[in-house]
Amino acid sequence: MASVPAPATATSAPSLKATGAEVSSNGLADNIQSFKACDLEITVCQTHKPKPDTAGLTFGTMFTDHMLTIEWSAHSGWQRPRIQPFGNLSIHPACSALHYAVQLFEGMKAYRGPDNRVRLFRPDLNMNRMLKSAHRACLPGFDRAELLECIRRLVEVDQDWVPHSDSASLYIRPTFLGTEPSLGVKRPSQALLFVILSPVGSYFSTGAKPVALWADCKYIRAWRGGTGDCKMGGNYGASIFAQYEAVDYGCQQVLWLYGDDHQITEVGTMNLFLYWTNEKGEEELATPPLDGIILPGITRQSILELALEWREFKVCERYLTMSDLRQALRDNRVKEMFGSGTACVVSPVGRVLYMGENLRIPCPPQNSLASRLLTELTDIQYGRTQSEWSFLV
Amino acid sequence: MASVPAPATATSAPSLKATGAEVSSNGLADNIQSFKACDLEITVCQTHKPKPDTAGLTFGTMFTDHMLTIEWSAHSGWQRPRIQPFGNLSIHPACSALHYAVQLFEGMKAYRGPDNRVRLFRPDLNMNRMLKSAHRACLPGFDRAELLECIRRLVEVDQDWVPHSDSASLYIRPTFLGTEPSLGVKRPSQALLFVILSPVGSYFSTGAKPVALWADCKYIRAWRGGTGDCKMGGNYGASIFAQYEAVDYGCQQVLWLYGDDHQITEVGTMNLFLYWTNEKGEEELATPPLDGIILPGITRQSILELALEWREFKVCERYLTMSDLRQALRDNRVKEMFGSGTACVVSPVGRVLYMGENLRIPCPPQNSLASRLLTELTDIQYGRTQSEWSFLV
Repeated sequence: MASVPAPATATSAPSLKATGAEVSSNGLADNIQSFKACDLEITVCQTHKPKPDTAGLTFGTMFTDHMLTIEWSAHSGWQRPRIQPFGNLSIHPACSALHYAVQLFEGMKAYRGPDNRVRLFRPDLNMNRMLKSAHRACLPGFDRAELLECIRRLVEVDQDWVPHSDSASLYIRPTFLGTEPSLGVKRPSQALLFVILSPVGSYFSTGAKPVALWADCKYIRAWRGGTGDCKMGGNYGASIFAQYEAVDYGCQQVLWLYGDDHQITEVGTMNLFLYWTNEKGEEELATPPLDGIILPGITRQSILELALEWREFKVCERYLTMSDLRQALRDNRVKEMFGSGTACVVSPVGRVLYMGENLRIPCPPQNSLASRLLTELTDIQYGRTQSEWSFLV
Repeated sequence: MASVPAPATATSAPSLKATGAEVSSNGLADNIQSFKACDLEITVCQTHKPKPDTAGLTFGTMFTDHMLTIEWSAHSGWQRPRIQPFGNLSIHPACSALHYAVQLFEGMKAYRGPDNRVRLFRPDLNMNRMLKSAHRACLPGFDRAELLECIRRLVEVDQDWVPHSDSASLYIRPTFLGTEPSLGVKRPSQALLFVILSPVGSYFSTGAKPVALWADCKYIRAWRGGTGDCKMGGNYGASIFAQYEAVDYGCQQVLWLYGDDHQITEVGTMNLFLYWTNEKGEEELATPPLDGIILPGITRQSILELALEWREFKVCERYLTMSDLRQALRDNRVKEMFGSGTACVVSPVGRVLYMGENLRIPCPPQNSLASRLLTELTDIQYGRTQSEWSFLV
């Protein structure tokens, strides 16, 4: 693979110490050309939007007063990062993000704890994934610690927007676009990295109620040799059509299958877990392995790590097919099934519609694994439990 | 499938006669809510950019003085189409085209003939494909004849930009974006259709020289259950990484394979043709069938129709695998191989690098099928041959 064009001027890689970031222990220092957080230019709003009532918050519809923007060009490299008033972007109509989906994003949240401090949850993992997506999208690399420090500063500037709530949060959306102002499918010579913030309540309108899934092999989310393991826009736009077909079948989300054996891969925009007694009679929490078609979710990874730490049952990444699920349901071996993601955290599955058959999935009303994981994870996220996964803003 | 949200007010479908479009014979009248070309608002530039020298034109880097924009919202339906000075778009940073690749495009050209008249080539087929892509992308429908008439008017306004040349042309890029200003993967409630124009020379820097292809199953362009048969941006951004890997292997384009039997599907951003003596000893022009993973190219369709009309050899849509190609090369049964597309028209293939082996493809220096098709097609496109495929601007 040809290397990403290097910026015109060579400077030494930024040191983590110089940025004042608290992330040095996360090992994010990248020996590459990058913008630096210490170069941040901050322009504060003259007027502030009113903060919303956390009760009525809908996902992603309201934005804070400021945004972070960082421009790059093959000719001049990364420019100084800027925190500026939230506003529309001025985009060339030939922009490669608009024509060829040279674009990627991340999803993170800032949580306000009972101590009134604001925390991020494992943001180093988002930075890792974002850099990986950038590589796949032929967008330039950056120093992950520098970007995280810029994001920290943005959240700090808009900290009053982090809801005073134990269930709402401030959603953080880093986005990275190719802004090549000419047509032709090629590596962009210009790019824009920006971050916007949105106070959010619960992702699903049904709240924590179990969701019904439509499992059909008519639409395939991702495939080997594609981009399913990166958070690139094209993975999502192509899924909307199937999502509405699921709704037409009375379901809320798509259960994405793969291959002739109808492997279970993901749910809507979430990773999927099956908690069951496996074929060998072992109590097991299983999720499909990261084989190139699965998004490496940070909640997914955290659930695997938490459950492994408990040492109460087998935890594994393995292939699961619809016939595995069907057989296990017949044998009463399925305990629970749930999706995981930054937006929803943990979302129990109550029903799967598959080949015209409604498969009922058990949803224990009390003491479920899903609710236990939800509690443990949100306790860490909101700072109610001390954890090295917490990152103080 | 849930239907596309209808605009708020009901009006009768626009009649083709009322628009004055010359396309009534193409059967593009759509009985759906749409903008109307007769509502066009035209704001002409005060100053005009200098026209470029056609000799030094690079694909898609220069744009004309004007652009067409048409806005839609679920609440108010389609707005009046506008022809206005070319300029940047003001886009909300949460725009669904930037995050989830809710976007699609078309590629067409306007050609100036020796009679100094400007023609489009089978634009009805572009309108058909664009409407199909819009459906798949969950973007609203429109009347294809109305859009074509708006595009005709735009080309008319910028007609001085159509090169006085028998090989250069004015590239037309219709683009359609979801402009939903909120996060969450869903059907957009706002959209923007726009068209920009770019005078272009030859697409490939090598001109009509044969291209070398890198055939590897490491990257897959499209898959069944995906969007490979629609002109959606996500298909293209995901391909750039592979394209540069092809360059690293000394090739210009990727030959996209599919499946365990390494089916030949497309080339870079072109359809692919094999002209050979098939397994049964028949002289045959073959291209992969439109089975969902192939882009239904307009040049592809035109080549099939032209060659069928000639009745000189078998013309067929059929599966072709790399082992078919390898065996045919061993048997000296391959006559030619070429890509087809709006940008390049016909592009001969000289070499395929496959599993470490360089497969040499014959490229007759004279009287090749590729050059015959190029001549026949460009004669129609530039109006040197009368054809019902021509559409006068």
